[in-house]
Amino acid sequence: MKRHARPHKYIVGVDLGGTKILAAVFDPRGRMLSREKKSTRPERGAAGVLDRVADCVNEALAAAAVPHTAVAAMGVGVPGLITGGGAVVRMAPNLHWQNVAAARQLSQRLHFPVTLINDVQAGTLAVQQFGAGRRLRTFVCMFIGTGIGGGLVLNGELYRGSAGAAGEIGHMVVVAEDGPRCGCGNYGCLEAVASRSAVVRRIVTAIEKGRSSVVTELCDGNLRRIRSRILAEAYREGDKLVRAVIHDTCEYLGIGAANLINVLNPEAVILGGGLIEALGSVMLPRITRAAMAHTISASAERVRILDSGLGDDAGILGGAIAARQLAA
Amino acid sequence: MKRHARPHKYIVGVDLGGTKILAAVFDPRGRMLSREKKSTRPERGAAGVLDRVADCVNEALAAAAVPHTAVAAMGVGVPGLITGGGAVVRMAPNLHWQNVAAARQLSQRLHFPVTLINDVQAGTLAVQQFGAGRRLRTFVCMFIGTGIGGGLVLNGELYRGSAGAAGEIGHMVVVAEDGPRCGCGNYGCLEAVASRSAVVRRIVTAIEKGRSSVVTELCDGNLRRIRSRILAEAYREGDKLVRAVIHDTCEYLGIGAANLINVLNPEAVILGGGLIEALGSVMLPRITRAAMAHTISASAERVRILDSGLGDDAGILGGAIAARQLAA
Repeated sequence: MKRHARPHKYIVGVDLGGTKILAAVFDPRGRMLSREKKSTRPERGAAGVLDRVADCVNEALAAAAVPHTAVAAMGVGVPGLITGGGAVVRMAPNLHWQNVAAARQLSQRLHFPVTLINDVQAGTLAVQQFGAGRRLRTFVCMFIGTGIGGGLVLNGELYRGSAGAAGEIGHMVVVAEDGPRCGCGNYGCLEAVASRSAVVRRIVTAIEKGRSSVVTELCDGNLRRIRSRILAEAYREGDKLVRAVIHDTCEYLGIGAANLINVLNPEAVILGGGLIEALGSVMLPRITRAAMAHTISASAERVRILDSGLGDDAGILGGAIAARQLAA
Repeated sequence: MKRHARPHKYIVGVDLGGTKILAAVFDPRGRMLSREKKSTRPERGAAGVLDRVADCVNEALAAAAVPHTAVAAMGVGVPGLITGGGAVVRMAPNLHWQNVAAARQLSQRLHFPVTLINDVQAGTLAVQQFGAGRRLRTFVCMFIGTGIGGGLVLNGELYRGSAGAAGEIGHMVVVAEDGPRCGCGNYGCLEAVASRSAVVRRIVTAIEKGRSSVVTELCDGNLRRIRSRILAEAYREGDKLVRAVIHDTCEYLGIGAANLINVLNPEAVILGGGLIEALGSVMLPRITRAAMAHTISASAERVRILDSGLGDDAGILGGAIAARQLAA
């Protein structure tokens, strides 16, 4: 009788965001069998959030009819700085976490090996293996959502920097004079003028000053509920305020892309994240035009601006890639 | 009788700038034997400039008492885009050159092998092998002179980008709103607010508007003759205009450095070029302070801002490195 050396071949990928948790189960051939979603509720603290991650994973395993004993490993994309070789979340501002040994705590709940990976690095690996970066050796990812994160693939390798902190493209200063304040405490960062949060802030400020917009209806008068989906709907309905703010945002994103092109001379800049998922078709041409206008000629000749092609799945796919490396 | 396999072991390094040509001869152990200087006179056209390069090299060889037959190779740093594996200057705006087969033409004049290298990449290699980058694996060079050029060493390797055009850090946009026009045609580039040319432009504009400054005397009333040396003298004499402009410039350079730190998480940002050579001691602390104020914490913890330590020799040393690779 031949014994299987590794009978546990299923992989779980998790995208742990500040707003929602996504979990997916992949079979040994890499096909996604199930995908579940849960709100994060960061206010419940690390233990509470990790309970919710475990619940979400259990639901995904149940939906795929895969027993825990058949899982080789799980990888979790986390919006923060990961240390200890994928074991510890050193800090994750959106979750209000500091030094959480999340890999061990999830492993105790789920009884299979768990590794952590920065969410943007996870998304970048996913773009490289499954998305628009598949045939490229050198590209930059820009993920535009609540914040703006960046991932660099240089000469075929994910570039992490000297201390694993590379890719903070959202904190490039692009408005050095009188720029708005950023969440990081500085002024004029790209994230402060071009993230979904920056878009929402400008729209809310205008509405509060009396400007009319279909957004007010679309979110039932609760302006805190503005999400990318609502912005996309308002844009499609021709809302003037939303259009003006999105168009401005594309200018800034184009400048951010151009800065990265001028410094790194990549084959492509690849865009992802919630805002692009919702509004990519209108934003991409405008971002491209703005980027080309600010790129010096030698780099502009061949560079392309692309959609990641992965929609909301970049995070779970990247988590699965990290899990597969752990299991290998 | 034992024959020497390679009797020609002397190396020539040349720094061909828009203003001046520097040439140096190195012995087989890498010691600099002589160093000569000539003005470039780009108005004489490519053939005229190449004559002057050959003259300068001949003078350096004569000063070192090294015959042409003893030279293994020569490397020339050129302010432009190099193609053809070090053979052709595809374009060099400061020299007004396009598609000049400079390696062959110099080789015909001097009768030994010649290779070309981008001047900023040459300077970066020199910083890596002989300067402040010696013990570092990942650093960014910022050369601040007439323009602002950048060189990236990532994980021990000079990073050139997908088409050899990486490092155009001078064309990062840092003043997205109402920034001044840059030589490249865009607005708000780092080079347009923080190069020596930008410093001079602001000082000249202020003087022409009636502001008094010791600079007027120092350049004998000919404001076109302002160079880094004159700026340094005026600064040391306490000239208020020059001090204000230099201090502003340090803010912008700090923002530029911070952008590179946030994106690339290097161990160090290393500063060189004419403006730093002349004013490094007063500029470095201010640039460092501004950079730290705009760097997010994870990357700021360990990064250092350093002087290249090579002064005016970065270019010729880099040319020599390229020559040694050609001869090897």
